Amino acid sequence: MQRRKFLTAAVTGLAAAPLAAPALAAGEPEIKWRMASSFPKSLDTIFGGGETIANRVAAATDGKFQIRLFAAGEIVPGLQVLDAVQNGTVELGHSASYYYVGKDPTFAFDTAIPFGLNARQQNAWMYHGGGLELMREFFKDYNIRQIPAGNTGAQMGGWFRKEIKTVEDLNGLKFRIGGFAGKVLTKLGVVPQQIAGGDIYPALEKGTIDAAEWVGPYDDEKLGFNKVAQYYYYPGWWEGGPQLSVYVNLAQWETLPPTYQAILEAACAEANVTMVAKYDAQNMPALRRLVAGGTQLKPYSKDIMEACYKAALELYDETAAANPKFKTVYDAWKLFRDDQHLWFRVAENSFDNFVFAKSAAAASGAAATSTPEASGETAGASAAGGWTRAAIAGVGGLAVGYAGGVAATRARAKPAS
Amino acid sequence: MQRRKFLTAAVTGLAAAPLAAPALAAGEPEIKWRMASSFPKSLDTIFGGGETIANRVAAATDGKFQIRLFAAGEIVPGLQVLDAVQNGTVELGHSASYYYVGKDPTFAFDTAIPFGLNARQQNAWMYHGGGLELMREFFKDYNIRQIPAGNTGAQMGGWFRKEIKTVEDLNGLKFRIGGFAGKVLTKLGVVPQQIAGGDIYPALEKGTIDAAEWVGPYDDEKLGFNKVAQYYYYPGWWEGGPQLSVYVNLAQWETLPPTYQAILEAACAEANVTMVAKYDAQNMPALRRLVAGGTQLKPYSKDIMEACYKAALELYDETAAANPKFKTVYDAWKLFRDDQHLWFRVAENSFDNFVFAKSAAAASGAAATSTPEASGETAGASAAGGWTRAAIAGVGGLAVGYAGGVAATRARAKPAS
Repeated sequence: MQRRKFLTAAVTGLAAAPLAAPALAAGEPEIKWRMASSFPKSLDTIFGGGETIANRVAAATDGKFQIRLFAAGEIVPGLQVLDAVQNGTVELGHSASYYYVGKDPTFAFDTAIPFGLNARQQNAWMYHGGGLELMREFFKDYNIRQIPAGNTGAQMGGWFRKEIKTVEDLNGLKFRIGGFAGKVLTKLGVVPQQIAGGDIYPALEKGTIDAAEWVGPYDDEKLGFNKVAQYYYYPGWWEGGPQLSVYVNLAQWETLPPTYQAILEAACAEANVTMVAKYDAQNMPALRRLVAGGTQLKPYSKDIMEACYKAALELYDETAAANPKFKTVYDAWKLFRDDQHLWFRVAENSFDNFVFAKSAAAASGAAATSTPEASGETAGASAAGGWTRAAIAGVGGLAVGYAGGVAATRARAKPAS
Repeated sequence: MQRRKFLTAAVTGLAAAPLAAPALAAGEPEIKWRMASSFPKSLDTIFGGGETIANRVAAATDGKFQIRLFAAGEIVPGLQVLDAVQNGTVELGHSASYYYVGKDPTFAFDTAIPFGLNARQQNAWMYHGGGLELMREFFKDYNIRQIPAGNTGAQMGGWFRKEIKTVEDLNGLKFRIGGFAGKVLTKLGVVPQQIAGGDIYPALEKGTIDAAEWVGPYDDEKLGFNKVAQYYYYPGWWEGGPQLSVYVNLAQWETLPPTYQAILEAACAEANVTMVAKYDAQNMPALRRLVAGGTQLKPYSKDIMEACYKAALELYDETAAANPKFKTVYDAWKLFRDDQHLWFRVAENSFDNFVFAKSAAAASGAAATSTPEASGETAGASAAGGWTRAAIAGVGGLAVGYAGGVAATRARAKPAS
């Protein structure tokens, strides 16, 4: 670092100047903070969001502001990160706020609520729709400043040991499911379990639980769920765009130089956009591998979707009636959501559905043979304009796309068959 | 800034120490750079992306690294920002790379190509799909390091003085349209015009052009297009997720301290996620105002979409055959796109389509009366699972949603009718 040495010399050369000499001022202080993550080190996506932040902060401060990241269980269990930041055990946390709905269901809005916003819409609400202001006011009671710092995109609907065809099949099911969605499913007879990511596999393997959802193909494959459950459902209707948040102990935040505050906030925004990009880039190759390995990919039935939707709306009304904080946020959130859905149906969704239908048609044409996986699944497309409905006619692409992937995967595995 | 004075004193106190003394090192140098934007100051969204970056960089460096932002035309015209950075007239630019397809069509991948990626997918390609590496290699020939720094989301399809019902209606049309899409439309008889944002309105008003597309409701309303054209089409199939980029003169980039490089990159990532959030939050209120003011909202016909799609694929093949740089990027991009579309059809699109259909049904129920706008538009939903197709039955929501909005807007405008 020749430049640094040069500048050090330049500053020391100013020793005879008055004490309050401006320009070429001193650097900021050296600070070492600890960040407790709710996630296991094995997940380079969601645990990796914390690493993105720590690395960027270090690079931006020439290593003077150092954040040491700890995986779930290293300092506190994954589901106690909020408490650890609140009581000052650590200065920082990286978590999903809906883990703490047991304290107050209002936490769910900081992550996702069932049938809520997708990732883009969650960001719109947070950064430019009043969400951040509402959430920061709420988090003050927990001595925390929260900063959006990651998103997984719409998640999968979970792993099941047996097929779930009807609403009745949910009754009595012990299902590891995060956040507010557990309360929705309770209305349909499910016995929800809140278990941190790293602890799900043994519970599913031992049969302590019947089903589990985590995130999506890339993470779920790493956690090995496909080895102990065959059926993989979609979509994860309870988290269309779940946000991860950084928690900063409020008293510690106020001691931070404004430059470090600015750097930390920018690094969190960066983690927000790059985490979902990593999920998006990695999920399809992982899903191909899973399907090639025997995983049965299934959409939730219309009946289940409708029953869950109805239960969710009931739960929101009941919760709002009982909890003024929840009501304040929910009322504002609902208006914003309505506008978001209306707007996305115009340009965004009609673009998506057209190109996805074309992609499905191309995949369908590429894979000439039909497959067992093709039954029960149809290609995606429709939307705001009339042309999109016509575009889906006769396209049987989604499962065929996977089958093509499976064939390709198998071909790569057996080059000399 | 008491702390700063204190630390200055501490450093000057080290004067007797050896020249290479570590710790409490000098601050970084004071740097003033100029950034030329391709956009007019009136657009707080897309011009605002540059402001986000300049403000964050200043805050993160205590004002030592200052970026002064200039609107289109202040230093160079909006469409010459690349040249200005390349030849060192300014250190930085903020632009849309597809403005420069006249130099090389490969530039288009840095923004969007017709029927390409949505905003999330563009980020996935850039940050974790190999896109950034490919684009940085390409930009080296222009003496530029590019950094993703904004996105508008899927755009609208433009403003027309007369209805565009068939492919034949495009013939001879003088259409202001950005980037590579102009070349696609040339195949259908359109005479494309490349005009910077701030210069579109007078051209449309004078009749120098017949039609113009810019971004979406929020920007378009500010630029006043609704005053000179009645028909507003969707979607902007040529830009499903167009990225804005920061250009850094490569020689200047290499003189920047690593801390400032890190801060600039983080600030660009932040602008990337917050710009599209701002568009998403602002577009629907603007669209309501436009429709209330008489704008006719129309989807492109299926025939037009199909003809443009066919023309686009032909153009890509022709361009790849003639241009090895384009071919290198296109081949890699295509594989990534196929995976993206396949993956998005599973969880993301099936989630979106379900909640959008529910939103449409709710809007439909809320607005009891049918309206003229409702004709020719159907509510959005379908997708990978069978349940979603059933969900669209009987829903006539999109236009009704607008009608509801129009009614609400009018009600607000005339409180005592």
